[in-house]
Amino acid sequence: MNSNVRAYAAASAATPLGPFRLIRRGARKDDVEIEILYCGVCHSDLHTARNDWGWTTYPIVPGHEIIGRVASVGADVTGFKVGDHVGVGCMVDSCGHCEACDEGHEQHCPESTYTYGGVDRQDGQRTQGGYSEKIVVNQKFVLRVPDGLDLKGAAPLLCAGITTWAPLKNYGVGPGSKVAVVGLGGLGHMAIKLAKALGAEVTLFTRSAGKEADARRLGADHIVLSTDAAQMAAVAVRFHLIVDTVPYLHDTNPYIPTLRFKGTLVLVGYLGPLEPALNSMPMVIGGKAVAGSLIGGIPATQEMLDFCGKHNITSDIEVINMQDINDAYERMLKSDVKYRFVIDMASLKQEA
Amino acid sequence: MNSNVRAYAAASAATPLGPFRLIRRGARKDDVEIEILYCGVCHSDLHTARNDWGWTTYPIVPGHEIIGRVASVGADVTGFKVGDHVGVGCMVDSCGHCEACDEGHEQHCPESTYTYGGVDRQDGQRTQGGYSEKIVVNQKFVLRVPDGLDLKGAAPLLCAGITTWAPLKNYGVGPGSKVAVVGLGGLGHMAIKLAKALGAEVTLFTRSAGKEADARRLGADHIVLSTDAAQMAAVAVRFHLIVDTVPYLHDTNPYIPTLRFKGTLVLVGYLGPLEPALNSMPMVIGGKAVAGSLIGGIPATQEMLDFCGKHNITSDIEVINMQDINDAYERMLKSDVKYRFVIDMASLKQEA
Repeated sequence: MNSNVRAYAAASAATPLGPFRLIRRGARKDDVEIEILYCGVCHSDLHTARNDWGWTTYPIVPGHEIIGRVASVGADVTGFKVGDHVGVGCMVDSCGHCEACDEGHEQHCPESTYTYGGVDRQDGQRTQGGYSEKIVVNQKFVLRVPDGLDLKGAAPLLCAGITTWAPLKNYGVGPGSKVAVVGLGGLGHMAIKLAKALGAEVTLFTRSAGKEADARRLGADHIVLSTDAAQMAAVAVRFHLIVDTVPYLHDTNPYIPTLRFKGTLVLVGYLGPLEPALNSMPMVIGGKAVAGSLIGGIPATQEMLDFCGKHNITSDIEVINMQDINDAYERMLKSDVKYRFVIDMASLKQEA
Repeated sequence: MNSNVRAYAAASAATPLGPFRLIRRGARKDDVEIEILYCGVCHSDLHTARNDWGWTTYPIVPGHEIIGRVASVGADVTGFKVGDHVGVGCMVDSCGHCEACDEGHEQHCPESTYTYGGVDRQDGQRTQGGYSEKIVVNQKFVLRVPDGLDLKGAAPLLCAGITTWAPLKNYGVGPGSKVAVVGLGGLGHMAIKLAKALGAEVTLFTRSAGKEADARRLGADHIVLSTDAAQMAAVAVRFHLIVDTVPYLHDTNPYIPTLRFKGTLVLVGYLGPLEPALNSMPMVIGGKAVAGSLIGGIPATQEMLDFCGKHNITSDIEVINMQDINDAYERMLKSDVKYRFVIDMASLKQEA
């Protein structure tokens, strides 16, 4: 049976988010109905609300760092029961039988369905995200939240966590690895925590002096001011992996010489032309690569959550009410958050 | 005892190559003295002769696709004897004890010494290449040429061969792999032959119609005209690996959507800014990479030669005399060679 739930939506690229009523489908036989407790606020939410990428259909309810409690389950659901703490990330469905799905890289399935702004493969309805009281998701895309993990701080793991975990795992980071992280925001602070917990020596590249104490607290062994030529030269040919989390246009060239041979700079934040032009010379001469990485598959997401449970890793967050979202977006644009906003969905109850 | 040998050198960026007398050192205890029979003509020779990369010291004797016969060996040389057919590629020395050397990636050793334009680590002399009668090389950088392989056609394996072999091996190409090659020149035609022999399904991307018959003869299963939008769309998300051999500025963006997730486009020919700017969006969304690859290490070079011996693979060549080198450079700039010039060093004997 469909339900009518409170949410926050953007009605157009130019309007702030505001209260919205959303129809959620009743649980199908393989669905989990989730009461949303917390939802992290990702840069993608803001980009989508404002149609920065040109693909938004309005109204749009953002939110894909969802933590909740199972409210009901369909007849065929195994592995989840009412009351369980669960998470939902950036995807809610995929075809289930392509090479990407077979390998657990559902994000690369041609029919991968985003949590918001996608189209449900069964009923053709537009998907809407986690800035709402409830969501109904196929059990294959529901994650288990390990016991004992702080639920508020766990919300950003569903996007910021897996987005940084995937390259660390795909490029084999472990003890002995030298990893650098570009940018200290929602993604960057998770990259530092996860790389450190995996046993790597971790360096933060930053353009702002004064982040040193915080970076060290998060787990960074070294801080390099990327605007200081001498500091950059001192880390030449050093890193096996650079996780570049910066979500806006920036010059990637200065980081390439700091990669070892066979090293890779992985872009996880910025979508657009690499300007000034990436120079292939140090890439060829040094045998180096620049790659993109998109969130991560469901098996990797569960692996990351379990790892975080074991190492008690959550995001550093600032809890806000749903009504504060537009101010939060403005503060994100100024990097004024340490390090992720998380919406307490109880605040939605004060809406009509 | 030093010897005075005939060679061809460029005296400046603006002058054609001409006859030159070169002093070769006597063989040290771990050196192999090689009578050069054939030397392939690589685009790097031309770039270096004309100082296109800005690092040339004159006079310079190019040539790093060297096939010859052992003339003498130092006291500590094992594994080579007078009369053996041997090869020398792009390197003649390295430190021998860094991580790159330990892993057999001597090309990434900080002390890697190029065959020409480098500086000998022991005597500080400038190294000079294979456009000469003789070369003296540390045994660790001398390759065995398998019996039965055509010596003339084997010369380009020392650079064009290993340059295309290395990414094929590093990215795990074998039966079931779908490999594309960009550009049908000296490197491109070797990439096709090697990928095919490794068991891959091979596609040639070309901007020129009319190469189809030749590409198929070399081993290509498919030919895609990269200027034809419909043909490009038909190979979307298809390739595990693209070996991009084009040695001049070209737009790499159109090839990215043809990579599968986790696929990589490897640049082996072009050194410089990637313009128009490489767009990270399809790289992030699709989980794709752009990498550089530089020749290959000594173990991989020997492995490639042995593979070529087993599969009777050599380069398609046009044999020229040393005196024809300047005309050959002009023809290379017009892509007027199928597919590699090889200098018959016997022609040097007519010089004074």
